Amino acid sequence: MSSIPTQNIYDDPKFFKAYSTLPRSQHGFDAAPEWPVLQEMVLKNNKSGHSGIENEHVLDLGCGYGWFTRWARENGAKYVKGMDVSTKMIERAKESEQDLREKGSIPPSYGTLCYEVGDIETVSFSASEIDSYDLVYSSLTFHYIEDFSKLLQQIRLCLKKGSPKDDSRKGGRLIFSVEHPICTAPVNPQPDWKVLPIEDGDGVGRKIWPLNSYSDEGPRMTSWLGVDGVRKYHRTVETYVTALLQNGYVLTGLKDWVPSEHDVEEHPEWKDERHRPYFLLISAEIHSDY
Amino acid sequence: MSSIPTQNIYDDPKFFKAYSTLPRSQHGFDAAPEWPVLQEMVLKNNKSGHSGIENEHVLDLGCGYGWFTRWARENGAKYVKGMDVSTKMIERAKESEQDLREKGSIPPSYGTLCYEVGDIETVSFSASEIDSYDLVYSSLTFHYIEDFSKLLQQIRLCLKKGSPKDDSRKGGRLIFSVEHPICTAPVNPQPDWKVLPIEDGDGVGRKIWPLNSYSDEGPRMTSWLGVDGVRKYHRTVETYVTALLQNGYVLTGLKDWVPSEHDVEEHPEWKDERHRPYFLLISAEIHSDY
Repeated sequence: MSSIPTQNIYDDPKFFKAYSTLPRSQHGFDAAPEWPVLQEMVLKNNKSGHSGIENEHVLDLGCGYGWFTRWARENGAKYVKGMDVSTKMIERAKESEQDLREKGSIPPSYGTLCYEVGDIETVSFSASEIDSYDLVYSSLTFHYIEDFSKLLQQIRLCLKKGSPKDDSRKGGRLIFSVEHPICTAPVNPQPDWKVLPIEDGDGVGRKIWPLNSYSDEGPRMTSWLGVDGVRKYHRTVETYVTALLQNGYVLTGLKDWVPSEHDVEEHPEWKDERHRPYFLLISAEIHSDY
Repeated sequence: MSSIPTQNIYDDPKFFKAYSTLPRSQHGFDAAPEWPVLQEMVLKNNKSGHSGIENEHVLDLGCGYGWFTRWARENGAKYVKGMDVSTKMIERAKESEQDLREKGSIPPSYGTLCYEVGDIETVSFSASEIDSYDLVYSSLTFHYIEDFSKLLQQIRLCLKKGSPKDDSRKGGRLIFSVEHPICTAPVNPQPDWKVLPIEDGDGVGRKIWPLNSYSDEGPRMTSWLGVDGVRKYHRTVETYVTALLQNGYVLTGLKDWVPSEHDVEEHPEWKDERHRPYFLLISAEIHSDY
């Protein structure tokens, strides 16, 4: 693999300011329509045989403002660590934590929450973190990572290992979301919906997602929030799944996320978003220490 | 689910005649560019811990002319059964078998090969077939099936069960291909490549696959080989994978098939086929009898 320095657009002052105006920056989960599905994956918990994350050790890779880390602690996690490459993001997460502390909103029963500036692309874990996490979570971060297989190897090291002979003692879980490969595939010019001059039953043109270059994996440069050259990596669904299987994970869930029909009733403007999956959500477990 | 009668276009004389002129009808695997990848899935055989299908009991659902059934017997399978809803297809498969027999091309060391006309949509197995197969294989058939989950339950019944406590005695395997959901998604008018009026580096328009209606699962009617109203069922990748996991299968492989770069060197006319996956290939295993 190449050794391009890790991208850190979130520490670009212009980008960081623009990012802070996004609905999901301001409102967190309430503005993240995929969250209910991700939350269900997190709470389903095949591993422990019960629902929830009570007493779990949780790591959030690319934690941003810390919405998930705080949610995990509120939902009973014993220890939660958030990591992000952006110093500004970690500062912001710590500020939110300080606000909660000053408001007296952190009961003594809550678990430990900590933050660390860290580059996920080259992450390695301390001896005390090896085999320590029940859950590694990551939202909309892995499509920035060049070497996904290497990352899976690192995550595997820090997840708890189960017994190969005992299904009730499965290992830790990895749950993540990425932009769906159908969305990241098209090359420049920047992809966007097109309307074909073919009338639908209701007399309007047919809206289509102009898919191309699906199998040509690699970097895709886009402009976002006024910053040019934002680099994402396009990988196929096959590659995401194969990398998991080859690195000793067992796939436990895969979602081609689109807004549900219920979502569209509440937000009719999202109707077209059902034409192609927008996010890929995946859950996996380590079943044995092989 | 509805009770629409099973489609049997292959017994339509006009369709059957046109189908017999297709390259993959005339040349079998040599005209099926996805075969090498499927073959690798079949021969990999995580189950037995060795490569190959020697001494296995194999069932081919939607066997057509019987290319795979004959290949399986040649490659050491002990017992191979081919099933197809089309009487004409099964007649043709039996004719090929008779030809081989007359030519003396079936050594006594070969396993048993048999054919049965059967509707996969409503298939059920005799007592002697329960827990009997090492491998269920199906090529380009499951996208005709309305109730995929019910089919998986039936297939599970006939696959050998492994021990839940012994990884070396995993259960039987299911390997299948379908038209990729990205291909089956678009609704009428019949989908086809479009060229957007955006120049590529080489001065030609950008070729795109006009994806829409991905999340709206259900029947898709097309015309094929001069027959109107050919009915296929569009399901998302999520639905294929989720149905497997919910029915007790462990996913062992998933391929978004496109021609390889090597294929394109040999067939430059296939270049555009790399823009979107054409087939979805899946392998799965039963790990325990729960």
